Amino acid sequence: MENIFKKRIEALRDMMADNGWDAVVLSGSDPHASEYPAPRWKQVEWLTGFTGEAGDLVITADHAGLWTDSRYFVQAVSQLEGTGVELHKTRVPGAVGIPEWLSGKARVVAVDGLCQSVKAVEEIKAAIGEDGIAVDVPDMLDSLWAGRPSVPVTPVTTLDVECFGGIPRVDKISWLRKWMLLQGVDMMLVSSLDEIAWLLNVRGSDIDYNPLVISYLLVSQDYVKWFARKPGCGGPFPDTIDSYDELRVDQVEVEDYDALAFALSDLSQDDGRVRIFIDPSTLNYHIYSHIIRNYDRSDVICGTSPVILEKSVKTPSEIESLRQTFIEDGVAMERFLHWLEDEVSSGREVTEREASVQLSAFRAEIPGYRGDSFENISAYGPSAALPHYCIPAENPPVIRPSGLYLVDSGGQYLTGTTDITRTVPMGECTRLEKEDYTVVLKGMIALSMAVFPRGTAGCQLDVLARGPMWRTRRNYGHGTGHGIGFWLCVHEGPQDIRQNFNAQPLLPGMVTSNEPGLYREGMHGIRHENVVLCREAGKDEFGDWLDFETLTLCHIDTSAVLADMLSSDELKWLNSYNERVYRTLSPLLPPEVSAWLRYKTMPL
Amino acid sequence: MENIFKKRIEALRDMMADNGWDAVVLSGSDPHASEYPAPRWKQVEWLTGFTGEAGDLVITADHAGLWTDSRYFVQAVSQLEGTGVELHKTRVPGAVGIPEWLSGKARVVAVDGLCQSVKAVEEIKAAIGEDGIAVDVPDMLDSLWAGRPSVPVTPVTTLDVECFGGIPRVDKISWLRKWMLLQGVDMMLVSSLDEIAWLLNVRGSDIDYNPLVISYLLVSQDYVKWFARKPGCGGPFPDTIDSYDELRVDQVEVEDYDALAFALSDLSQDDGRVRIFIDPSTLNYHIYSHIIRNYDRSDVICGTSPVILEKSVKTPSEIESLRQTFIEDGVAMERFLHWLEDEVSSGREVTEREASVQLSAFRAEIPGYRGDSFENISAYGPSAALPHYCIPAENPPVIRPSGLYLVDSGGQYLTGTTDITRTVPMGECTRLEKEDYTVVLKGMIALSMAVFPRGTAGCQLDVLARGPMWRTRRNYGHGTGHGIGFWLCVHEGPQDIRQNFNAQPLLPGMVTSNEPGLYREGMHGIRHENVVLCREAGKDEFGDWLDFETLTLCHIDTSAVLADMLSSDELKWLNSYNERVYRTLSPLLPPEVSAWLRYKTMPL
Repeated sequence: MENIFKKRIEALRDMMADNGWDAVVLSGSDPHASEYPAPRWKQVEWLTGFTGEAGDLVITADHAGLWTDSRYFVQAVSQLEGTGVELHKTRVPGAVGIPEWLSGKARVVAVDGLCQSVKAVEEIKAAIGEDGIAVDVPDMLDSLWAGRPSVPVTPVTTLDVECFGGIPRVDKISWLRKWMLLQGVDMMLVSSLDEIAWLLNVRGSDIDYNPLVISYLLVSQDYVKWFARKPGCGGPFPDTIDSYDELRVDQVEVEDYDALAFALSDLSQDDGRVRIFIDPSTLNYHIYSHIIRNYDRSDVICGTSPVILEKSVKTPSEIESLRQTFIEDGVAMERFLHWLEDEVSSGREVTEREASVQLSAFRAEIPGYRGDSFENISAYGPSAALPHYCIPAENPPVIRPSGLYLVDSGGQYLTGTTDITRTVPMGECTRLEKEDYTVVLKGMIALSMAVFPRGTAGCQLDVLARGPMWRTRRNYGHGTGHGIGFWLCVHEGPQDIRQNFNAQPLLPGMVTSNEPGLYREGMHGIRHENVVLCREAGKDEFGDWLDFETLTLCHIDTSAVLADMLSSDELKWLNSYNERVYRTLSPLLPPEVSAWLRYKTMPL
Repeated sequence: MENIFKKRIEALRDMMADNGWDAVVLSGSDPHASEYPAPRWKQVEWLTGFTGEAGDLVITADHAGLWTDSRYFVQAVSQLEGTGVELHKTRVPGAVGIPEWLSGKARVVAVDGLCQSVKAVEEIKAAIGEDGIAVDVPDMLDSLWAGRPSVPVTPVTTLDVECFGGIPRVDKISWLRKWMLLQGVDMMLVSSLDEIAWLLNVRGSDIDYNPLVISYLLVSQDYVKWFARKPGCGGPFPDTIDSYDELRVDQVEVEDYDALAFALSDLSQDDGRVRIFIDPSTLNYHIYSHIIRNYDRSDVICGTSPVILEKSVKTPSEIESLRQTFIEDGVAMERFLHWLEDEVSSGREVTEREASVQLSAFRAEIPGYRGDSFENISAYGPSAALPHYCIPAENPPVIRPSGLYLVDSGGQYLTGTTDITRTVPMGECTRLEKEDYTVVLKGMIALSMAVFPRGTAGCQLDVLARGPMWRTRRNYGHGTGHGIGFWLCVHEGPQDIRQNFNAQPLLPGMVTSNEPGLYREGMHGIRHENVVLCREAGKDEFGDWLDFETLTLCHIDTSAVLADMLSSDELKWLNSYNERVYRTLSPLLPPEVSAWLRYKTMPL
């Protein structure tokens, strides 16, 4: 039987031949540059079977290639077997990017401009040169993909800012309008879904794990138009009707998702001229092309959306709400860890999947729970050596009473978003497991204890986490920290803590993960992850100081810690953290869990 | 009596009025973007009295302003008193640079294009807009400055590469020609003096502390022309004649310094076209203007000179020579520190100046000594709170037998360049002095012990030195490390260790300083500085590792160390470093110094 993906790629090649395209480029994203696309936009998966969260596909007459990074190398090799699609590694020394690869190989390149950012297509155009043509073919796969899912439509709810902190949408829109005035722009088109959700205080569930509504937003000084409603596609839902009323009261007009193009065709104001602000790193090329066809290019102002930074700095009431949320999330985590130890040590065969399901079930008991913030990573022993491990559909591994189990998970709550990783010694551990466990912990503690002057960027702190590991010649291939939204995406910018030069300083109110790790193929994987809040820490002659408050509350198991590898400061931090966890969570835990936690948090 | 500087500025203003210039911009540098200019180019000092090593001057009809950075704020305020020149602070939050300041204030700006880089003038031109004119007036001050010094001319010597390591000049030129072929350029103009000295293996003493020859170099595939000889200006010297013969044997043509412009007027090859490579960050605007008047702009290729990186990676034999040089420099330092303690404790009144002179005298006893690598900083107590302290001409402070004395110094030797800072407890120290001393030491040790994967840049390591200080809410306003040449400039690129994003990775063979500090105005200043060599440190599954070998050999006084503030690793490093210093240097020291050093290096 011929491979189904081979057949699909051949059908696409027929389309290419009919149209005279030398190459097709398809991205793994959606029209809104989302990290997790809805099923409709899993074009790369439909064509190749590859399910990784990052992957771009290039098809020519004689080559099919998938570009992805080290997180997915193992997975790609296995999933692409028999498809004829070759793996192109990105972010490795000497990596050749798609534009560079196309250069000289293709003159006419077709892209699905809906699912490519302006920036990505401009890079392709630059690479194929002046003779080259980039053809924008929105929804290119529609005619090949029988039963292609439609644009999802789910109930829309609004944020109760009075109960859970946050800024009313009218204030956010006023702020944005003031910013637009200062920039001299009349109009701003927002296409990034978490920016829209934050601006309008709306949430949906169009995308797994991310509480977003697929939509565009057009803001002028006179109106706000939200292109979201899709009558006849399943909505509007009862919830949504109330939400829409609330939005209308705040002068937000709700229009159909597909009406954006029409609306963009004539935006001109009384004086006949309109200056439009867009963010080319998130706006899709198709909509951008439409804009520049209709307006003078000098009236299209490109830049970074100010919403990204504004959204990242949490308000005092959001922070208060987050503190409470992390307590509740910690209760779920401790109940889960207690349950797991109990089951495994009593000889029950708990699979990675069963553990994952049980963890989500404990979270689901929290009143504000609205789902997980990403797919749980539940990985025992060698499974954990893959930082982005997925449990196999068949025969999920069993968690044994020895070695290390890694669980990376988080919740979406009305009151905030959480993210935590614990690596759990399930019984006897080897010397190497303990060394690795301790060295990663030193990195996590060093970053937790950091004090730094205002103006410091995450990339300047990254070595605090890596330094102790580097000194033992250990390292990890992922970033140390990412921003986290408030009941929004578990990954958000603009700040991060990683090696790459990102000049964005850490600001008081930013919430970021702290998650060094270590991975030994075929053996084990370790990651310790807490979420930290950047806060003010005093001013003196030497600086205006900031530090981190650790928000995550869940004990760190000391049974795999080699105490003599810790400095006295590190030991003090660890004991005091575990004591704080016990004191905060024990009153909220069932008595047997509380007693167990007392034992687990005894000072080292 | 009217202030002499006021009068000079007024004379310049008359010139401005006569010529219709709205503003004059003068830099503190020379035609070769040198860090220390020869007296001829101390234009800012002549006009204002300001002697700092970094300062740019802007004169308009109603304003005179000096732009300089925090190292010189105190000095500038004092030296500019009565001149009418105002201080403009650079590198502070909200600082307004010269181009921005000129914008809207001046339409016709005159610059001495000889002493401004292409980049600096282009920034001014961009700021004053399309209507603005930048007039290039080379040697603008000649008519006002009676007795202005001429271009210096000193003997030229050549490097004995057989004795002291290094690469023969013919090999360096071959390498450069190959690089030019790969870039598709026919000609390269080198104007940076240390690049020329390195390429030709020549040294001079045209500039204080930097063993350089003021010159330009033109390299094509067919010839090498060195524009350096200045007949009738004092040279050539006997040394120089031999050196010139050696250069001619290697096919280097020696031409007059002033003949460059003429040579640049017709470089065209047989086919009538010539592509010229220049580095706009070091080439002066005057020569650049001359080039672009004569050639098609598309034939002038701008980029970073490859010599900078090539020069920074020392050869194995240079490294071997450096190791020996640091031993000899360490002997001079230990003799000096012993002498100083002896004098001060025996009640002699040693001034900061006397100590400085004595230190240079000890260095001068080393056979390869060719001068100091910069002006000694010899600063007792509150003097040391100024990182770039100069001893006052009158009544130099006396070094007392208590508190801290800071000495930052280095030598130029045939066999390499050194740079070292020691902060010396002269007797009783306060608790705060000891805390500061220990915290700075922790930073220096942390960087010394660093291990890091290939590809890591200095800015990613900077926090290792600052982190321990930040945790105690201390900081310093200068960089942590700068590259160091081989019998060349004590400050060289491209690598450094500081907060600013500089993507240049540290490479094996690079020599860099490691010098955190701490400064308390009116109290004391502390800096611990060693020079470190980046070297390979093994390869494994987690990376291709590099680390630092400390080249500097001079004990670190433990009497001001608060041992309980050091981790066991830090204590181990300190004791082992002092032991290494003793073992290496003691056989080379006079017996009484050796005995004293044994006592000074007893483990803590």
